[in-house]
Amino acid sequence: MALLETSKHCQGSVLGSVNPDLGSERQTASFSVERLTALLDGGAEQTQIRRAVVEAIESDPVFSRENQYFQTQNERYEAAVRKAVHLQKKMHEMGWTENGPEYKYIYRALSGDVAFLLHRVFMRSISVLGSDRQIAKWIPLATQHKLIGSYAQTELGHGTYLQGLETTAVFDTAAQEFILNTPKISAMKWWPGDMGRSATHTVVFAQLYIHGKCYGIHPFIVQIRSLQDHSLCPGITAGDIGPKMNFEHTDNGYLMLKNVRVPRENMLSKFCEVRPDGTYVRQGSQQINYFTMTTVRISLISDEVLIPLKKACTIAIRYSVVRRQSKLKPGEQEVKILDYQTQQEKLLPQLAAAYAFHFTNEYLQELFDRGYREIQRKNFDMLPELHALSSGFKAVITQHCTAGVEICLRACGGHGYSLLSGLPSLYTKILASCIYEGENTILLLQTARFLIKCFMAASAGQPVPPSVTYLAAVKHGKCPAKNKLDFLSPDIYTEAYQHVAVRLTSSTATKLQDLIQSGVKKHDAWNQCTVQLVQAAKAHCHYIAVKNFAETVEKLETKAGIQKIMKHLCDLFALHGIFSNTGAFLHDGYTSAAQVDMVTAAYLDLLAVIRKDAVPLVDAFDFTDQSLNSALGSYDGQVYQRLYEWAQKSPTNQMSPAYERYLKPLLHNTLSKL
Amino acid sequence: MALLETSKHCQGSVLGSVNPDLGSERQTASFSVERLTALLDGGAEQTQIRRAVVEAIESDPVFSRENQYFQTQNERYEAAVRKAVHLQKKMHEMGWTENGPEYKYIYRALSGDVAFLLHRVFMRSISVLGSDRQIAKWIPLATQHKLIGSYAQTELGHGTYLQGLETTAVFDTAAQEFILNTPKISAMKWWPGDMGRSATHTVVFAQLYIHGKCYGIHPFIVQIRSLQDHSLCPGITAGDIGPKMNFEHTDNGYLMLKNVRVPRENMLSKFCEVRPDGTYVRQGSQQINYFTMTTVRISLISDEVLIPLKKACTIAIRYSVVRRQSKLKPGEQEVKILDYQTQQEKLLPQLAAAYAFHFTNEYLQELFDRGYREIQRKNFDMLPELHALSSGFKAVITQHCTAGVEICLRACGGHGYSLLSGLPSLYTKILASCIYEGENTILLLQTARFLIKCFMAASAGQPVPPSVTYLAAVKHGKCPAKNKLDFLSPDIYTEAYQHVAVRLTSSTATKLQDLIQSGVKKHDAWNQCTVQLVQAAKAHCHYIAVKNFAETVEKLETKAGIQKIMKHLCDLFALHGIFSNTGAFLHDGYTSAAQVDMVTAAYLDLLAVIRKDAVPLVDAFDFTDQSLNSALGSYDGQVYQRLYEWAQKSPTNQMSPAYERYLKPLLHNTLSKL
Repeated sequence: MALLETSKHCQGSVLGSVNPDLGSERQTASFSVERLTALLDGGAEQTQIRRAVVEAIESDPVFSRENQYFQTQNERYEAAVRKAVHLQKKMHEMGWTENGPEYKYIYRALSGDVAFLLHRVFMRSISVLGSDRQIAKWIPLATQHKLIGSYAQTELGHGTYLQGLETTAVFDTAAQEFILNTPKISAMKWWPGDMGRSATHTVVFAQLYIHGKCYGIHPFIVQIRSLQDHSLCPGITAGDIGPKMNFEHTDNGYLMLKNVRVPRENMLSKFCEVRPDGTYVRQGSQQINYFTMTTVRISLISDEVLIPLKKACTIAIRYSVVRRQSKLKPGEQEVKILDYQTQQEKLLPQLAAAYAFHFTNEYLQELFDRGYREIQRKNFDMLPELHALSSGFKAVITQHCTAGVEICLRACGGHGYSLLSGLPSLYTKILASCIYEGENTILLLQTARFLIKCFMAASAGQPVPPSVTYLAAVKHGKCPAKNKLDFLSPDIYTEAYQHVAVRLTSSTATKLQDLIQSGVKKHDAWNQCTVQLVQAAKAHCHYIAVKNFAETVEKLETKAGIQKIMKHLCDLFALHGIFSNTGAFLHDGYTSAAQVDMVTAAYLDLLAVIRKDAVPLVDAFDFTDQSLNSALGSYDGQVYQRLYEWAQKSPTNQMSPAYERYLKPLLHNTLSKL
Repeated sequence: MALLETSKHCQGSVLGSVNPDLGSERQTASFSVERLTALLDGGAEQTQIRRAVVEAIESDPVFSRENQYFQTQNERYEAAVRKAVHLQKKMHEMGWTENGPEYKYIYRALSGDVAFLLHRVFMRSISVLGSDRQIAKWIPLATQHKLIGSYAQTELGHGTYLQGLETTAVFDTAAQEFILNTPKISAMKWWPGDMGRSATHTVVFAQLYIHGKCYGIHPFIVQIRSLQDHSLCPGITAGDIGPKMNFEHTDNGYLMLKNVRVPRENMLSKFCEVRPDGTYVRQGSQQINYFTMTTVRISLISDEVLIPLKKACTIAIRYSVVRRQSKLKPGEQEVKILDYQTQQEKLLPQLAAAYAFHFTNEYLQELFDRGYREIQRKNFDMLPELHALSSGFKAVITQHCTAGVEICLRACGGHGYSLLSGLPSLYTKILASCIYEGENTILLLQTARFLIKCFMAASAGQPVPPSVTYLAAVKHGKCPAKNKLDFLSPDIYTEAYQHVAVRLTSSTATKLQDLIQSGVKKHDAWNQCTVQLVQAAKAHCHYIAVKNFAETVEKLETKAGIQKIMKHLCDLFALHGIFSNTGAFLHDGYTSAAQVDMVTAAYLDLLAVIRKDAVPLVDAFDFTDQSLNSALGSYDGQVYQRLYEWAQKSPTNQMSPAYERYLKPLLHNTLSKL
């Protein structure tokens, strides 16, 4: 059931014969890998389009990532710019357009290893925040790359709390210009991608002052580098912020402004305008803006979070059937490490989570499409719920997947630690997703605020959004499971998750009220509950993820073994969550200790079941060898050969001046062979 | 109570004035920082010696780590060799010797950033495994650096399971030589440090064959590079294994042997000898060998595991009182992020763990010194217990501290992600400690095997080693705590931890027996219990860590506020463990849900208490700015200034060919300013 011929998955000089220890795993798949791939892609046609894009990109040597692990930050940056420029040509050549069906697969096919991503954010911000006139002026220039844009919001001393930004834009009525300044070092723009070395323009967020009065944060288009020789414009100090844990290919930059003047027309003015006389006019609704933020959080889940986890699972699971270590039974051959219960317990829950969150992502996408349609009809009712879900799931999924990638890395022992395994860079990159686009703890607290509000409303009999109606229906029963098989019933475990989410929300709401009633000030009371509020928000998202997975499985076709294997994964995802967090389920006696033991037994049983299909389940993700870029995870499982051949190409195998300079003088006394 | 004048902590051009947000934290310390430092060092004299070593190393520019985050792997290797060679000179100059009191501080002062560490392992293995004659021949040569040694055990396809190593050494009676070979690719030696580029000799572990019979793994001294021109010796293929997640400064290598001949005298023969006629003689006891392995596991805890966590805590906590973000109360100044309960909940348990494991380490060191004395008297009774404790604690402490460093990194948001924060390299380095010197899961299972054995023995009324006598005394009571203050009593929480450890061991022992009685084969039954066995081993270590911390606090001097603050940290360490793992405590009803709520309340209260002393508690670790090498963690807290000045020096701020090659042609259509 292999998707592509083996030869396509090969890299370098390794022969294409599949390692029998890996090959045998594919013989016994209980389901059709090809059908599961199509399900994940959203249909066989999508699979076809995706593969065509991948084929076109990977067969073009300009897009090669072969030497990536050997390159310096400077080389990575240069390669990313080269690829970004070449991509324009490629798209033209292939007839791909930004609105075409291929577009969404390009980034995946490049593994995100390309420059000018912020150029797109620059364009999006103008489209969303700019007037029609501004759009008409700037978007064509940007589309034709007559400028390179960036997006400068975060400052050295200010991230999440936008109101705290310190950059100023003072309106000069006489000159009809804004004067932008960085009043102190903490106000320096810091982190904007593409700004360190590439961008000619950027959207700067600054506090708007008119006649000495502050009107809050507004966006301004500012040119930072000459279009002729790329030198910095007058008043501009800019550069690269230096080495990071990953994203070597991106020139994250800094920017200081000293009396930089831009014309009045450069303030993006769809929602707010400064008239020539300095009159400040607010127009239209900014709610759509709020919606944009939530869309970004959802859109990053697939490419930046799920794909890395899927890749890490592919690498670690393929490696774990090729690697043999120790004997289970004396006298027999050494055992595939995936046959150890402890190894299964590390990897298979990550695999289940990858599938669970894949379906969560589809659920969120649908919800957002619906929300978007409502908003276009000027109905903003769904916004608070969408914001709460996008915030909570951004945090929960990034956290879970980051931990998952780390587990995969560690489960591969020493070889997982080699950059050539691909796992370190997957980890160091996905880690950033816990921080950018809203720091996770802050996002979870936003979800919690929504939950508390809805819980109060529900308790008072008021209507609440669909995803939280369950908060109104507090049940005081007990979990009805009588044996371990009962815990393979989605109703049983979904109810248990629901019960925990309600309990954590209601008990924290009570604590909050008690504190306030005892005289603690509201903001202090909130702060004193935040650890528990975070727990409640996580429980809410976990519940929805489990419920959605179970409902998705219910609707799957029963053919080709798909529903059955997905049901196993859903059970594993749910039971693993209970097993790793038994306190939450035991706390009020909803689940008894005997039932927790049943969960443990059912969970451990499932590991052995899913282990049999582990390789086909990662094959279904359909990653090519090039996109995995891993000496451990290749389709043919020739791990040791690859590690060796690859290592030989490392720059660390070139002559080092250390010998002549230090080693030779040290050894100089010694004569010939000892 | 600052330890050194501020000026000593400065780096680069930043002025030495302390950020008032950091300075104010030091005004209110409830204890003497200097006395706590002395306690951690083991006395004020030790502190003095340590500081003198640090001063000597850091004032020598050859040992500078200033540009480390900008260097390539090749540059890091070269610098590490330079430092290793210079260190010989320095030691001579300073009068430091390997047996002197300064020696143990040198590695810490260098932050481990030096070559030839495996040269020392080479020497140690000869001292332990070699005959007197071999020691007399090789040790002087190694000491004078007439050769550079390495230690080649791990193979591409074989790590933990030594019996599985595939390299062969066949005895040739006629030539009185061993013929060493790498029979297939998985047998290639892989990972040995100093071997990729530096070493001239190595100790190779290989399966010994005499007259066609295999005698198992033995160590052989093999020359791999010419002492004259450093070229590879005949039959040797060797090189560097390429990029890793960290340890760029180390040339981890690979080695293939093709009919490489070494004289009979090169097999290390303290315990086993091959006589000229091929007779194999085993002599003496190998138990001391077994003890060496456990010593290595203990010795790495301090330098490789605790120091990184202490550094990470220092960086993250100092940053968290300088960084202000959002407002708790409208209208007020933005708040120090350490004032948020969620931030305290991230960082302070890591700080408590750093102290807890500091004292665990002292406990283990003492135990080992005692064990060593017994062994010298030919009493090997303590060995199984020492092995179980060293294995379990190596796993538990590396795992806990690695997670702790990651939490510190993430708690610093975007700036934590910059290499300049120092946190990414602390993380990527400490992570390796979970894998090397025994993979953690395997080690925990060894501890578990010991626990099960002792539990069985204890149940049968047989005597067991001191650390596990508690397994015999299974109590079926309930936790007597009546309110949250009761949980500040070490007896209460230590008993609870003990109860959990006993329960997990006994229930797993029961499961194991039941499986075997039901007809499951012994090795399968063991495998089916491993997930729970790991839990039992962790619970055992956690219990001992808590108990030891409480006992240590009990014995501390009450002067200068030391005992009081250590008591708070001990409470926090214990309660955090319960709070994060409530299921284990609730399971059999020993602790009630109401009591778990008391724990939560007491735990959250403690966070606010310890928060006040957080900065003095990290100051007491006494790291200089040079050793932290962090733009966030400096003693003066001038975070933003440092980040900016440091970033300007990055190679990414040099001209890139990307402009002329790609950007200029792309932008060529555009004329002057838009």
